[in-house]
Amino acid sequence: MPAETMDELVSLCKRRGFIFQGSEIYGGLQGTYDYGPLGVELKNNLKAAWWRANVYERDDMEGLDASILTHRLVLHYSGHEATFADPLIDNRISKKRYRLDHLLKEQKPQVLEAVAEAMGLGDWDMTTLVAALMADPEKAAEAMTSAKVIDPANGAPGDWTPPRPFNMMFRTNIGPVVDEDSYGYLRPETAQGIFINFKNVLDSTARRLPFGIAQIGKAFRNEITPRNFIFRVREFEQMEIEFFVKPGTDEEWHQRWLETRLQWWEDQGIPRHQIHVLDVPKADLAHYSKRTFDLMYNFPTLGFEEIEGIANRSDYDLGSHTKAQSELNIQARVMENTDSTAKLAVQDPDTKAWFVPYVIEPSAGVDRGVLAVLSEAYTKEQLDSGEERIVLKLKPHLAPIKVAVIPLAKNKEEITSYARSLKARLQALGMGRVLYEDTGNIGKAYRRHDEVGTPFCLTVDYDTIGKSQDGSTTLKDTVTVRDRDTMMQERVHVSELAQYLLERLR
Amino acid sequence: MPAETMDELVSLCKRRGFIFQGSEIYGGLQGTYDYGPLGVELKNNLKAAWWRANVYERDDMEGLDASILTHRLVLHYSGHEATFADPLIDNRISKKRYRLDHLLKEQKPQVLEAVAEAMGLGDWDMTTLVAALMADPEKAAEAMTSAKVIDPANGAPGDWTPPRPFNMMFRTNIGPVVDEDSYGYLRPETAQGIFINFKNVLDSTARRLPFGIAQIGKAFRNEITPRNFIFRVREFEQMEIEFFVKPGTDEEWHQRWLETRLQWWEDQGIPRHQIHVLDVPKADLAHYSKRTFDLMYNFPTLGFEEIEGIANRSDYDLGSHTKAQSELNIQARVMENTDSTAKLAVQDPDTKAWFVPYVIEPSAGVDRGVLAVLSEAYTKEQLDSGEERIVLKLKPHLAPIKVAVIPLAKNKEEITSYARSLKARLQALGMGRVLYEDTGNIGKAYRRHDEVGTPFCLTVDYDTIGKSQDGSTTLKDTVTVRDRDTMMQERVHVSELAQYLLERLR
Repeated sequence: MPAETMDELVSLCKRRGFIFQGSEIYGGLQGTYDYGPLGVELKNNLKAAWWRANVYERDDMEGLDASILTHRLVLHYSGHEATFADPLIDNRISKKRYRLDHLLKEQKPQVLEAVAEAMGLGDWDMTTLVAALMADPEKAAEAMTSAKVIDPANGAPGDWTPPRPFNMMFRTNIGPVVDEDSYGYLRPETAQGIFINFKNVLDSTARRLPFGIAQIGKAFRNEITPRNFIFRVREFEQMEIEFFVKPGTDEEWHQRWLETRLQWWEDQGIPRHQIHVLDVPKADLAHYSKRTFDLMYNFPTLGFEEIEGIANRSDYDLGSHTKAQSELNIQARVMENTDSTAKLAVQDPDTKAWFVPYVIEPSAGVDRGVLAVLSEAYTKEQLDSGEERIVLKLKPHLAPIKVAVIPLAKNKEEITSYARSLKARLQALGMGRVLYEDTGNIGKAYRRHDEVGTPFCLTVDYDTIGKSQDGSTTLKDTVTVRDRDTMMQERVHVSELAQYLLERLR
Repeated sequence: MPAETMDELVSLCKRRGFIFQGSEIYGGLQGTYDYGPLGVELKNNLKAAWWRANVYERDDMEGLDASILTHRLVLHYSGHEATFADPLIDNRISKKRYRLDHLLKEQKPQVLEAVAEAMGLGDWDMTTLVAALMADPEKAAEAMTSAKVIDPANGAPGDWTPPRPFNMMFRTNIGPVVDEDSYGYLRPETAQGIFINFKNVLDSTARRLPFGIAQIGKAFRNEITPRNFIFRVREFEQMEIEFFVKPGTDEEWHQRWLETRLQWWEDQGIPRHQIHVLDVPKADLAHYSKRTFDLMYNFPTLGFEEIEGIANRSDYDLGSHTKAQSELNIQARVMENTDSTAKLAVQDPDTKAWFVPYVIEPSAGVDRGVLAVLSEAYTKEQLDSGEERIVLKLKPHLAPIKVAVIPLAKNKEEITSYARSLKARLQALGMGRVLYEDTGNIGKAYRRHDEVGTPFCLTVDYDTIGKSQDGSTTLKDTVTVRDRDTMMQERVHVSELAQYLLERLR
């Protein structure tokens, strides 16, 4: 049922105005994408569904929208300056640069075996192999060159440099002085904006544990090899929750959030069986994580890849950013903080002792979510006529256009004005975008709206304005409603339309 | 009625969780702000109102959401690389750096007179003075030093360097190679993302002139001296429309958009008499503008300052970014474009001739809009009791919290569970955030919700659950509804609540 290849999705996205390559007319800026007229609606609908479920419908959550430009000390103490790096390697012959782990994944098993042997590894997997190579870069260069690791750019063995870590944060100079002290970063995750505002939120809302702070916003990572359409990009959007709990209750909350998030994805049209929950192996955990579940969606062409990570970040982040660390019995290993001006801790209501909360972080990718939802909704159907139709079976609340109102005669003023006024009235119901659709013939309009997932097409015709060919007026003020999924059409009186649509779109 | 000083607004914003300084716990990152739990709702409500009015309720608009990271050629051909600069000047004594025009505005008239005289100017105003200084930087340094231009940092005359242009765009290296060719910019305006997608939108929607493309998103400018809270910042959000029209109809559309936008601001609670429409003098126009109206709101403390610019950008932008410029009879003076791969033009349906549309651009600031709406809504009232109350008289559709549901007894399970379930039912109406409010006593809750602009507080009490003190059950399933503006309370049956609230909140 879902899309079979990434190519057919990419093609639909471009053709129908969902997603375009960023800066396309100048050859494209790799790893950036622009959301077109329908993409922006789909993306906004997905974000609204997340905000509704996580902020509005809960009684233990506050929202936040922090800035993208971030003080370098935030990313220093968070550990990103030191550890948020990818291993990078160059081929001296082709001058091409690769992410080491990506390069290795494209090699044949016997080549990898030879590299591992040259590094003196017995039992190994990809994680331990990369770690061994990074631990001894000079030896790694020799091992990879002599094992004839292939450069995918030209298919020939490379002359490999020692691998080195490459920090993935975008830096930029801030303010009129250009020197080594006057830079900041584009945030690599929205999470840090939440941690550093912990006290601000506490002070302005009087929340007590357990509670969370939710944020949707852009984040930036200087990926070495962005690829797979909007899956691995340099500019992306996150939907992140930092949920603060009492230490000791963190594992229970971690499980609970796993269930909650799986249910949410199901509500967006991603069935449970299409998601594999990966309990991330200890060796692969991020520097802040005690344990992480990755939700891996079964993408066409790509296979199972992450759409959300649910991490137990322990007391690492608040502990890293708080002042007076030594008084707070912080469990995680954190850097000594000599700059923070805020105590990011709470008081136990019973014992009055101060402590740093643990944090559970469900962190979902907006763009990856959009891609997963599109993949899952994409359907090719064989019609009785022998024709094939493409239909996006999006959940109605995600559909970019909820209803298309189509005047059957484009030059008949009575019909077009009726259709326009009907469109305006339906729009006022507040259910999302309603489109006045007057391009192409009716058959083409149906096909187009199938392809973009519009749940309902309404047709205004001569019957609607009381001018049936047979002279009867029994169909006056009725319209034809066509259902995207069943393709059934029924005649509905306009006075009942609001109710009819709201019931089916909610 | 509106706020009298910026300070009282800033204080309310911090205290109640609307807006915090960015990276505050590390001393702050100048020119960045974080929106707290209430600020994010207010901001999102303002953006939603704009999107609704401009995309959903019109039949001639498409939406877009382009990336922030932008190819340098986009900002090269747009003219930003060459002209998007502020004049900068240093004081050799204090080592302080200033924006030249800002520095001059803080000088006494006789000092400015002396500078102008030294530059050989007879009749002058601030614009021509700055232009003269930038045209001859060496002479300017001498003139300003000998005229004893004061450094605001220490109140003493400075030893001034020649002024020079400082480009306000943030640059960052993109990709793993760090050299002079591998950088891009954070977009300084969202507009360019629209222009470069003009053909993509045309191809995927079959629009014909006149039509517009609307976008909401972050933009970045490396302001030399960010100031006045969220008014002049380095990271901000824009709501921009590029409305494409046939040349010759541009002036009429320009006027029409002026009226449309003034009406929209009025719908957000900014009365017409609080906005001054500035017909920007020719000498002050941006490099792309044929004519611009600035909507200047009367801010407390600041006075009249811009919240929106409505520019006639002529065919400058599409003309700058199109290929085959020489075939298109472009009116504006544009740079020769040897890189673009797209023809950004349309065909006249009658003559079949290709031409570049003119563009009307209503460009509003989200943050400035938030500040204006807050300023206007801020009200201090003298109560009969002699007390003063602060109330934010926000339009209901902008209020961060629509309804607070307050259980009158926090420890009575029957009352709290009734209140929670009522909150959930009201939340499901889809009118925005409904808060379950169980902190502090009822009087304090009312005051707090006045201060953040919550239109209605509902109280669930013993009467509601049918356990009145007098034993009667006539008030069972009714709640007390308190109105923010009138402070009147009335008893409403829960079965009528949805209707009651929706009528008053829409």
